[in-house]
Amino acid sequence: MDCTNLKAAMRSIPDFPKPGIIFRDITPVLADARLLRQAVSVLVEPHRGRQVKYVAAIDARGFILGGAAALELNAGFIPIRKKGKLPYKTIEESYDLEYGSATLTVHIDALRPGDSVLLVDDLLATGGTAAAAVRLLEKLGGKVAGVEFLVELPDLHGRDKLAGYPVRAALAFEGD
Amino acid sequence: MDCTNLKAAMRSIPDFPKPGIIFRDITPVLADARLLRQAVSVLVEPHRGRQVKYVAAIDARGFILGGAAALELNAGFIPIRKKGKLPYKTIEESYDLEYGSATLTVHIDALRPGDSVLLVDDLLATGGTAAAAVRLLEKLGGKVAGVEFLVELPDLHGRDKLAGYPVRAALAFEGD
Repeated sequence: MDCTNLKAAMRSIPDFPKPGIIFRDITPVLADARLLRQAVSVLVEPHRGRQVKYVAAIDARGFILGGAAALELNAGFIPIRKKGKLPYKTIEESYDLEYGSATLTVHIDALRPGDSVLLVDDLLATGGTAAAAVRLLEKLGGKVAGVEFLVELPDLHGRDKLAGYPVRAALAFEGD
Repeated sequence: MDCTNLKAAMRSIPDFPKPGIIFRDITPVLADARLLRQAVSVLVEPHRGRQVKYVAAIDARGFILGGAAALELNAGFIPIRKKGKLPYKTIEESYDLEYGSATLTVHIDALRPGDSVLLVDDLLATGGTAAAAVRLLEKLGGKVAGVEFLVELPDLHGRDKLAGYPVRAALAFEGD
């Protein structure tokens, strides 16, 4: 699917969240009903009719596209959240940040061994967050059917951390 | 629509996030493809065909149902976020918490005066968060078509803070 109109709608914001970073703002895509529908369609297209049982997404922005993708695929939704946010028993995975580390969690009963799950997120940057999310889903026995992003920053080589999984991104911004 | 099956699927977790609170966990509803679809349908039902231009939702859990509701209504999506999270210029509204206060923000160009917007959130407790979100949308000139919750805790009288708006909740848990 041609995504040049999605890319054209993105807003680039210099020096956010800190100097030297160009933030790729997806809110203009979300705000336009037709672009939102197109974005969700692009994310789920290869997975239609493939018995994906769950769409998993990472808070917070990932939840927007993830909830819509679950509805579109007739799948259930699994939230992956920062530590302390999920109310029931969880398992956790930590990943490195530029300074320090962060921890993601998922409910221990979020899926059963063998269940097919699609991971959806807005942005593939260094890939650390998505890789931690994949490890969480696999710890529970989930079969990761794919990892779908709206936006990729290829210069950060996030795909290296997701080697072996079907990874797709609708849009790419080079030079980041 | 009969929502007894949605209510039956909810999980109640005592003493989360702190002693004495019973947390109403929506993740079993989200996880079941049919219940997720039903929950989204219940939220949007009164607004079908009414030219709702946007669905707005509050991070993080609200994004899951909000993203799906926007897709279902063929509307755009507006994220309302905690201060510091949105990358572009924002306006803000603060609200009181049990101890201290919190601030919500929305992009200044999220909508235009006169645009119809539906606010969706998972939980109506004291109503402070939703009321702040409504104030934000109205500051931009938005016409709030309704405020839709999946779960309401009526004993906390959250509707008092939303008087004058069409407020609905799919499920209620008394005695909280």
